[in-house]
Amino acid sequence: MAIRVTIWNEFRHEKRVPEAMEQYPDGLHACVGAFLSKDEEIEVTLAALDDEANGLPDEVLNNTDVLMWWGHMCHNLVPDDLVERIYKRVVEQGMGFIAMHSAHFSKPFRRLTGMPCALTWGDNMNGIVWNVMPNHPIAKGIPLNFGIYEELYSEPFSIPTPDELIFATWFESGNIFRGGVTYYRGLGKIFYFHPGHETCPSFHNPIVQKILTNAVHWAAPNATGEGCLVGDVHQTTAVTDVLFGTKE
Amino acid sequence: MAIRVTIWNEFRHEKRVPEAMEQYPDGLHACVGAFLSKDEEIEVTLAALDDEANGLPDEVLNNTDVLMWWGHMCHNLVPDDLVERIYKRVVEQGMGFIAMHSAHFSKPFRRLTGMPCALTWGDNMNGIVWNVMPNHPIAKGIPLNFGIYEELYSEPFSIPTPDELIFATWFESGNIFRGGVTYYRGLGKIFYFHPGHETCPSFHNPIVQKILTNAVHWAAPNATGEGCLVGDVHQTTAVTDVLFGTKE
Amino acid sequence: MAIRVTIWNEFRHEKRVPEAMEQYPDGLHACVGAFLSKDEEIEVTLAALDDEANGLPDEVLNNTDVLMWWGHMCHNLVPDDLVERIYKRVVEQGMGFIAMHSAHFSKPFRRLTGMPCALTWGDNMNGIVWNVMPNHPIAKGIPLNFGIYEELYSEPFSIPTPDELIFATWFESGNIFRGGVTYYRGLGKIFYFHPGHETCPSFHNPIVQKILTNAVHWAAPNATGEGCLVGDVHQTTAVTDVLFGTKE
Amino acid sequence: MAIRVTIWNEFRHEKRVPEAMEQYPDGLHACVGAFLSKDEEIEVTLAALDDEANGLPDEVLNNTDVLMWWGHMCHNLVPDDLVERIYKRVVEQGMGFIAMHSAHFSKPFRRLTGMPCALTWGDNMNGIVWNVMPNHPIAKGIPLNFGIYEELYSEPFSIPTPDELIFATWFESGNIFRGGVTYYRGLGKIFYFHPGHETCPSFHNPIVQKILTNAVHWAAPNATGEGCLVGDVHQTTAVTDVLFGTKE
Repeated sequence: MAIRVTIWNEFRHEKRVPEAMEQYPDGLHACVGAFLSKDEEIEVTLAALDDEANGLPDEVLNNTDVLMWWGHMCHNLVPDDLVERIYKRVVEQGMGFIAMHSAHFSKPFRRLTGMPCALTWGDNMNGIVWNVMPNHPIAKGIPLNFGIYEELYSEPFSIPTPDELIFATWFESGNIFRGGVTYYRGLGKIFYFHPGHETCPSFHNPIVQKILTNAVHWAAPNATGEGCLVGDVHQTTAVTDVLFGTKE
Repeated sequence: MAIRVTIWNEFRHEKRVPEAMEQYPDGLHACVGAFLSKDEEIEVTLAALDDEANGLPDEVLNNTDVLMWWGHMCHNLVPDDLVERIYKRVVEQGMGFIAMHSAHFSKPFRRLTGMPCALTWGDNMNGIVWNVMPNHPIAKGIPLNFGIYEELYSEPFSIPTPDELIFATWFESGNIFRGGVTYYRGLGKIFYFHPGHETCPSFHNPIVQKILTNAVHWAAPNATGEGCLVGDVHQTTAVTDVLFGTKE
Repeated sequence: MAIRVTIWNEFRHEKRVPEAMEQYPDGLHACVGAFLSKDEEIEVTLAALDDEANGLPDEVLNNTDVLMWWGHMCHNLVPDDLVERIYKRVVEQGMGFIAMHSAHFSKPFRRLTGMPCALTWGDNMNGIVWNVMPNHPIAKGIPLNFGIYEELYSEPFSIPTPDELIFATWFESGNIFRGGVTYYRGLGKIFYFHPGHETCPSFHNPIVQKILTNAVHWAAPNATGEGCLVGDVHQTTAVTDVLFGTKE
Repeated sequence: MAIRVTIWNEFRHEKRVPEAMEQYPDGLHACVGAFLSKDEEIEVTLAALDDEANGLPDEVLNNTDVLMWWGHMCHNLVPDDLVERIYKRVVEQGMGFIAMHSAHFSKPFRRLTGMPCALTWGDNMNGIVWNVMPNHPIAKGIPLNFGIYEELYSEPFSIPTPDELIFATWFESGNIFRGGVTYYRGLGKIFYFHPGHETCPSFHNPIVQKILTNAVHWAAPNATGEGCLVGDVHQTTAVTDVLFGTKE
């Protein structure tokens, strides 16, 4: 059964900023969708902030296995109730969530991590992504390091302690950044990946494409609709009695 | 310099429920305060929901190094702006936060962890706390296991992956519970500890007292007022130039 | 391409101990092999201590993607050079390693973890396995808890801090045990799972079978023969020059 | 009660290599000992490879709370039985172990971690140490980044997944390195810290000195001589009976 991926994009820069329009004429979500679609097990839906229901009506969200997110200048235009619907879909139902680049500061990522997720940033420049967990499924087939040309993102990065630190990035300005990290939260799995500035070519980079494709497979839910972690449960029968029968 | 601990208690049960009044006639925060005060390096302030400014006006909160929290039925009466003030004090300024028993479901703990923190619960019964990280500062001097009589708290417990799992509890009903866990968040440190139901004697247990005393020392801030993780920072000079001088 | 699994068994008890012969007449490795073989993507080879070259000549080991291990009374009969060959195959080439039950004390598991891996043990009894990481690939399709009848294994368990704690077991005697844990080491992935005493029926339990099948998929290597972590490397050209070209 | 620190040094380079003799005329262990001794709670003993019993006879090792280790060219001259005595003292009795610089490849560190601990290395050059866990006791009072002039040490670094990643280092050649990591093992605590090449001035750097002083306090044992994790234990009485009395 295919993994149903919805790629959500703010999709404003690529309509107005010449450099972004050049890199991603149809929107960067379209670029991401195109390379993901080469994987026969992945089924792509595109969604944008300015679409009806902000691109994520219930019928879309509830049929999404992995939600990918890119936002930047319009984080605040994402309605809080949509954020809560995304949150519940991840934590209670196991939808994967992949935050790309400036989505570190998006409402859903901050809600899911509970942290400010603030960082230090600067100009576009040369960077080197180091693969420090080569045995992780997301790092499958990825070299030990590779070059990027990207917006500087740097520590201090106020995220929770990563459950897994897969990639860390070196920048020529002297900075480093924990740019590829995972979180297991409730029934869901979350991946943050740094490359993907709207004026940089990273989504055209085959290594970046491979990482995001791997991440979709990794983040796909174990099962959906379980609801087992929804809330406070009052247990009135001993588990021992349920599993082994009541002692007499 | 003393560690300034503020012990916040909902303090309602101990005024109304006979069994709670018997266990903790002056409030359980007073009991916690009494044993912590035996440590000369700890300076205790008591605070309650029904105190002025809910017990935590700025002059108290901003002079607190470690905030301990107990709440149960009145989580929703804690104002959201107080929760945000606590959150910032922990994440941005390094105040320690110790959530006791039913504070798993308190607003500050859920805000700090970003998770529902829901669990399964049941009757008071025999339990055994296992020390699975004997080399942790919070476990200093604690035996490998000890008995408690406590309210059943059980998995599934929808918390983030613990940064450290120090204690895990066995219950005679067949349940287990990750009942002693830590989180490092921003500049702050957080400890959740399970024992402490209002009708159970756990706060009179010397081992529980030792654990909470250890936890206060562990959670004390490295430094306060740094503000280094507050927000988005735009770096305009290379770190290499700052540290090594500009190349010419 | 199939995952090539070799199931190594000491295979002594099942030839001599009546209760073990009854549970696993062809050896417990044959039982494990039988249920794994139902998965079309898994290709099984059986190996035993008393086979030629202890069942793991180079042509077998070097064509194994995931090695499963069961040993108990004869840990010391496994030659040290075989242990080193297994170690290198895991760490340097990415072979998965799954240690079952009393293999906690096997030479390969102790070599891979660097720890004594000692524990407290006792009689066979009722236990309950709790799934505390339901979003992990190894927990796919596994209920939140299930009953077993197993040899008591208990904390203190002197293993390294688990990279992931997936299952924790409750025993009626008051003990708990971190009975399902993972480690990422070099290019390899390692899973330890507690059930599987020779006189207990756990390998006939469909839930245990599902967990071990999941674990094989999880532990399969990302790539083999890379050798990138073999040893000390002297870097004589800057990575920046390699990736971005030498500055003039 | 003072923390008894023994600083073990191979102490060969500083007798022969002019640049090392200049940096550390009395041996780098003497330099480390001098700054640690400024802390009134620390009591320093110096030990060297060429001392009697390699500097660590039983009466020294068994009275050491934290062992600091520096070795480079003579790792193989350290006798295996000494390595085992150190290992047991850490894992079974809680002695702290601090591996400095090229001690990544020392026998005790490799024995304690179970990993090759290989890395890529190169010339001395400018580096920047980033503090990515400012709330850790070892990072107390340490700035978010600071410059060093050090031997290049780089990923891939084949260590176990760090329990805590406190410092990560940037090098001008395009490399990064997980240069400040901790492990909790048995009753002991272990810290690896990268700076400290024999021809570099790092041990004269007040920030490096502060980090190592913090590390000594962090690594000091919770208790000694407990022996609770020594080995296989056969439990013959239920823990419930021990703690709650036998049911009749």
